[in-house]
Amino acid sequence: MTEPLISSYKKLLEKVKGILILQSAASVVHWDMETMMPPGAINLRSQQLALLSRIEHKMSTDPEIGKLLEEIMKRPEYDRLNAVQQRNVYLIKKNYDEQTKLPEDLVAEIAKQEAITVDVWKKAKTAKDFSMFKPKLEKLVDLKKKAAEILMAVKETATPYDALIDIYEPKMPSETINKIFGELREGLISLIEKCETAPKQPDVSILKHRVPIDMQRKISKTIAGFVGYDIESKEARGRIDETEHPFTTGYYDDVRVTTHYYEENFTSAIFSTLHECGHALYDQNLNPEWMFQPVGTPCSMGFHESQSRFVENIMGRSREFWIYFLPKLKKFTGNVLSNVDLDAFVFALNQVRPSKIRVEADEVTYGLHIIIRFNLEQDLLGGKITVTELPEVWNQSYKDYLGVDIENDSEGVMQDTHWASGLYGYFPSYTLGNVYSGQILAAMEKDLPEWKNQIAQGSFQDIRQWLIKNIHSYGDLYDPSDLLKKTSGEELSVKPYLNYLNQKYSKLYSF
Amino acid sequence: MTEPLISSYKKLLEKVKGILILQSAASVVHWDMETMMPPGAINLRSQQLALLSRIEHKMSTDPEIGKLLEEIMKRPEYDRLNAVQQRNVYLIKKNYDEQTKLPEDLVAEIAKQEAITVDVWKKAKTAKDFSMFKPKLEKLVDLKKKAAEILMAVKETATPYDALIDIYEPKMPSETINKIFGELREGLISLIEKCETAPKQPDVSILKHRVPIDMQRKISKTIAGFVGYDIESKEARGRIDETEHPFTTGYYDDVRVTTHYYEENFTSAIFSTLHECGHALYDQNLNPEWMFQPVGTPCSMGFHESQSRFVENIMGRSREFWIYFLPKLKKFTGNVLSNVDLDAFVFALNQVRPSKIRVEADEVTYGLHIIIRFNLEQDLLGGKITVTELPEVWNQSYKDYLGVDIENDSEGVMQDTHWASGLYGYFPSYTLGNVYSGQILAAMEKDLPEWKNQIAQGSFQDIRQWLIKNIHSYGDLYDPSDLLKKTSGEELSVKPYLNYLNQKYSKLYSF
Repeated sequence: MTEPLISSYKKLLEKVKGILILQSAASVVHWDMETMMPPGAINLRSQQLALLSRIEHKMSTDPEIGKLLEEIMKRPEYDRLNAVQQRNVYLIKKNYDEQTKLPEDLVAEIAKQEAITVDVWKKAKTAKDFSMFKPKLEKLVDLKKKAAEILMAVKETATPYDALIDIYEPKMPSETINKIFGELREGLISLIEKCETAPKQPDVSILKHRVPIDMQRKISKTIAGFVGYDIESKEARGRIDETEHPFTTGYYDDVRVTTHYYEENFTSAIFSTLHECGHALYDQNLNPEWMFQPVGTPCSMGFHESQSRFVENIMGRSREFWIYFLPKLKKFTGNVLSNVDLDAFVFALNQVRPSKIRVEADEVTYGLHIIIRFNLEQDLLGGKITVTELPEVWNQSYKDYLGVDIENDSEGVMQDTHWASGLYGYFPSYTLGNVYSGQILAAMEKDLPEWKNQIAQGSFQDIRQWLIKNIHSYGDLYDPSDLLKKTSGEELSVKPYLNYLNQKYSKLYSF
Repeated sequence: MTEPLISSYKKLLEKVKGILILQSAASVVHWDMETMMPPGAINLRSQQLALLSRIEHKMSTDPEIGKLLEEIMKRPEYDRLNAVQQRNVYLIKKNYDEQTKLPEDLVAEIAKQEAITVDVWKKAKTAKDFSMFKPKLEKLVDLKKKAAEILMAVKETATPYDALIDIYEPKMPSETINKIFGELREGLISLIEKCETAPKQPDVSILKHRVPIDMQRKISKTIAGFVGYDIESKEARGRIDETEHPFTTGYYDDVRVTTHYYEENFTSAIFSTLHECGHALYDQNLNPEWMFQPVGTPCSMGFHESQSRFVENIMGRSREFWIYFLPKLKKFTGNVLSNVDLDAFVFALNQVRPSKIRVEADEVTYGLHIIIRFNLEQDLLGGKITVTELPEVWNQSYKDYLGVDIENDSEGVMQDTHWASGLYGYFPSYTLGNVYSGQILAAMEKDLPEWKNQIAQGSFQDIRQWLIKNIHSYGDLYDPSDLLKKTSGEELSVKPYLNYLNQKYSKLYSF
């Protein structure tokens, strides 16, 4: 590399380093709001977060970044930058273009409308009254359409909706998702039918034993230790706290998870802890050399979800995990679970049962909840349906896909916060994550054919290292479909995930 | 007010509002570091705090602030601004001048040297080796002298050291402090001698009863409730956590305290909680109309300390407080303290005993620890003694003032972090706070002659309201000596404080 190129590249990275550090500080402030903040501080806190986000926007749209990008990219020796350096430049340019092309007034109007819509959504959900929510949602959807059209031009996507998906799942066209989700839907519906009609059914009453919260806290700590999420040593880079809606937040050396504890539903904490630890391992194990560089961030929302679901479902709901962990659980809980049988327990944990609420759905039916939302978003942003029609189409889809009757919009179209919060294009990432996790599992099985035995013996070490090596440490070096190819050697395909599900559930349900 | 003046004034306040919000966000990040942060995050955290402080510096030295100040102050109708508005302009100008007159290189060099010096101080303190610490301290003192000389010109103080004091105690000349501390020293030394030679002496063994930490936590919560520091309601604006060195941090609606618990020294938590709650009440009860304005900040470090000491000592170590609280304490602790006698307990809590360590000193000897530090700082910054001579002068002063022999520099000149951290001119505020608290008490007694009975009956309500009305709600509307006049009707004087001490201790020690 020649001097001027090096110098401009370094200056550019220095600018972006500041943005990443600021984001990581803001994530601490946000975590505090959810976990520690005295309730009376909420107004002050919203002003603090708004200010930090204004400062971040200003830093991200600093014209100096544009100048440096231009200087770097016009240089004839540009292609002497290595792959990582070029990726950094690419990611910085992508973010800069998106942030500078959206008019500031529109960004501010959307932020304001999102705050209003979330507020009304909460009230409307409590009142079970979609008509309260509707006018605010309509305004937000209109604003989002405007933004999506601008982003479509910048990102050169096929549709405005594709431009929104691209925020969470880069270069993943809705056309591809439609194809994948179509195959998945068929596979899931057929599998659900087999499970529902199987003569053998699980007894879920064994999941209702009361386990005191203090015991559950200890169990969560043990689970964290098992997957290698260190919260106790002097080098710990994480911690577990409690919130109603569990989440993971942080950056490299400070990645925190939350979980929730219900005395009469003790497995909820176990699986939410496993899920969030899956996220946390990803954030903690990005390539340390890339800290403070754009390439040192996770690949996509879908890949993030692939990691949480992998740990929660593929590992945590496996028979092998419980061969190891059920005796431990029995020890923790004294005589509460002493009569519980391994196979009956694992069967109960994996009950397949269509339901109305996404966040309570089992591993198999979950995908259908997402596919319904994807279809609706697509039609809404594409102008094929209106906000007014949303509840009706929602309810009909739930009847068609899951066979359930939605009785009011609070358990229907208003159940999730996403649309009120302006998160359009986000839902497909959840299920893409599941599809990825199937391909990741298939790839891992080639390298670690003994992984199930290892888990049964209480060792997650090799699996963890495999995930770090093949996914986490790549950070954002590749777009999702390229990382998938790199990791699994295959194009995006729903088959490995359906294979995993079919094998697992045919065994459980004996069909 | 004319339009252009209003408009410039509003713009100016908007600029400063951002700075105050950023500071309040940084205080959350700092609090998290001390209480919640996983230990492995320390490097990331120091980068986050450094960035926030760079952003704050940039916002504080924004040339636009200078322009707006000039526009406002040159207007002929300037004096039509009311007192609060003029004070805001004054405080903004003062801060802007100080921040812009110090060369950025010097500020950065000092920050770097402070970090180095603190680090070496920790090691040298452990090793009991002043010679390790000395060269770093010399460099820091030289840099601080440079800064002090620049600030002296800006602030127009009599000496460079006065310019440093002015940071914490505005417009409080070292000449005044010398006079006040001289009188105080005489009074304290005479009082200590009377206490030490009194035939009646306290039995402090009753303070050594073991009280389990969980009980102590409940006691702290009760104390917080008693003084009106709300940590439990849905409108709570505070919380109590645990750190080795207790502190208070925050802004208006989010003011947090920490305390520490020692099983074999249960009164430590009680008094540190009272002390920090005294600070917290001040920060929470600034005039709410002045939130996000410079006038809506505390008056000075000394006034802050007057509030914490007032609650901790004047109230918390009074016989009346324990008439109310000892029975409660006995209830909390079961049979641990059942045989403790009220008067014996209060006497033990107020034992006067010269010692080597400032933070362990009692109410009476404490002032001498500070006066020693003030004298040394003054001579050090004034060039009358060198860093090399510090330990010797320190040890001699402790012998002369307190009659104790310092055996090594870790229990001597290296005991506090202040000089390693660059906090020169800060120490006098501690004892000025005590002097203020004496005048505040005298003034309060005129308005609330029944205050002792109220406390004995468990009511802090009227006292709290008096403090809010006469001190907290004035924020930074006045400089310390003016606020003192406003509150007490008197000039700064050591007499009321010495009166309070003499009355209290002559009763306790029966002389």
